[in-house]
Amino acid sequence: MPKTRVAVVGLGLLGGSIGLALSRSAGPWHVIGVDRDEGTVGKAIAAGAVDAGTTDIGQGVHVADLVVLATPVRTVPDLIRTAAPGMKSGAVVTDVGSTKAELCRTIPPLLPPGVVYIGGHPMAGSELKGFDAADPYLFENAVYVLTPATNDAVAMRRVLEFVEALGAQPLVLEAARHDRIVAAVSHLPHLVAAALVNAVADAAAADAQLLALAAGGFRDTTRIASGDPALWRDICMTNREPLTAMLNLFQHTLARLRGAVEAGDDEELHAQLEAARATREQ
Amino acid sequence: MPKTRVAVVGLGLLGGSIGLALSRSAGPWHVIGVDRDEGTVGKAIAAGAVDAGTTDIGQGVHVADLVVLATPVRTVPDLIRTAAPGMKSGAVVTDVGSTKAELCRTIPPLLPPGVVYIGGHPMAGSELKGFDAADPYLFENAVYVLTPATNDAVAMRRVLEFVEALGAQPLVLEAARHDRIVAAVSHLPHLVAAALVNAVADAAAADAQLLALAAGGFRDTTRIASGDPALWRDICMTNREPLTAMLNLFQHTLARLRGAVEAGDDEELHAQLEAARATREQ
Repeated sequence: MPKTRVAVVGLGLLGGSIGLALSRSAGPWHVIGVDRDEGTVGKAIAAGAVDAGTTDIGQGVHVADLVVLATPVRTVPDLIRTAAPGMKSGAVVTDVGSTKAELCRTIPPLLPPGVVYIGGHPMAGSELKGFDAADPYLFENAVYVLTPATNDAVAMRRVLEFVEALGAQPLVLEAARHDRIVAAVSHLPHLVAAALVNAVADAAAADAQLLALAAGGFRDTTRIASGDPALWRDICMTNREPLTAMLNLFQHTLARLRGAVEAGDDEELHAQLEAARATREQ
Repeated sequence: MPKTRVAVVGLGLLGGSIGLALSRSAGPWHVIGVDRDEGTVGKAIAAGAVDAGTTDIGQGVHVADLVVLATPVRTVPDLIRTAAPGMKSGAVVTDVGSTKAELCRTIPPLLPPGVVYIGGHPMAGSELKGFDAADPYLFENAVYVLTPATNDAVAMRRVLEFVEALGAQPLVLEAARHDRIVAAVSHLPHLVAAALVNAVADAAAADAQLLALAAGGFRDTTRIASGDPALWRDICMTNREPLTAMLNLFQHTLARLRGAVEAGDDEELHAQLEAARATREQ
């Protein structure tokens, strides 16, 4: 059985974990690692995460049947522009970016004839970064969303085999629908946590005891605000419309809670807190 | 050395934990447990959390040097009204309610001559409820805020000995200042988490996949929204002014983040996310 040659571009947490997972899977994978940092390429080869490695993206994708961009969402178009002339006809391009509609619009026109794009978003991650944090089990049982910009069944089968080799569960969604969902369950919570930390920091400027008394509830609620600002900026900026729609919804539900507090309306405040508790318990 | 007689009114998580902690401390404590539920009184006696118990609050506080109300914040004034005629001169009343300014205004006029009030708020708790969840180490190293409505040094010393017997760290604050702090670090995060869950539930009504894709970040951020709605309603309703002031601040910091997203202002969004990350890392 001929091996499927996979070029993984970007050997950070996600790319490194992809390499490690593929190298442990039974499938016929030959993995070429691409990273701008030579030391990282060396580490990935030494760890057995990739069969070969290079810092030259054109050389890396040259023979690849599947090209996986595992770099921050906003770097993907430029990397595709650089790599596209080297891609072979029949290759499939995917990525791991957190937002999909913008890439599904931008990428297909950049690809050479015979090369198709199927967007991907593994719903797995970690606060950690870099190849040193890579983990062959990172994707185990995680939902892996695919947003195909093609009807090519052969391409789709190749990407599905790749996702299954990672131990993840593929879920095909329209890109715009994916983006609305992550705006709700990921991007909105991130902005809300950041706004909460910034509000409490403003209040703390007037009272030195305040942060000292921040307890577990506050720490849980704001944990995600520790995320990488550049990464989250790019996620938010590539999903502005769905995120703004969710901000509208949130501002409305918060205003309702506030209204009940201001009016001293016990019954209404209880009903809204109970609704939240019931949803949360699901 | 004569024993200090402590009446603990309400043998739930907090009252039960107080009883268990005092019974394990070396100090000269005689604990009388009071609960409206006879079964709970029996359990507390059997567990050694209290030396004696009763369902009659008047009888329970009759000989007490220290009366500790460990019931929900809004039940405290009525229980004091019922118990006050039975209190002996020289007794000290304290409580464990999450808001303090309203109680510091309400309670002193209800007390008989020679009885003083020192508000208390142990910054410890659990999602669990009831005597079965009581834990002698619940207060170990926790900050225990005291908001005295008196200058009585003897009374203050008695409450400080009580707090230290629990293993907690006393912190004396003005009641209004305490309430502003907990509005920021506890009550605001609670309303924000509830509003977030309610907004996501609204969005989920239009897309069945949405809640299924809610990941760890969302779960962390909204954990506190699982709290008891009646308890949190009462906390919010007894702290309306400080809470409204914090809601103002939060709505402002959220609007700033939203403005940066809407304007596509990369630099500004990064600066705000970085500020949150830096505060969070402290």
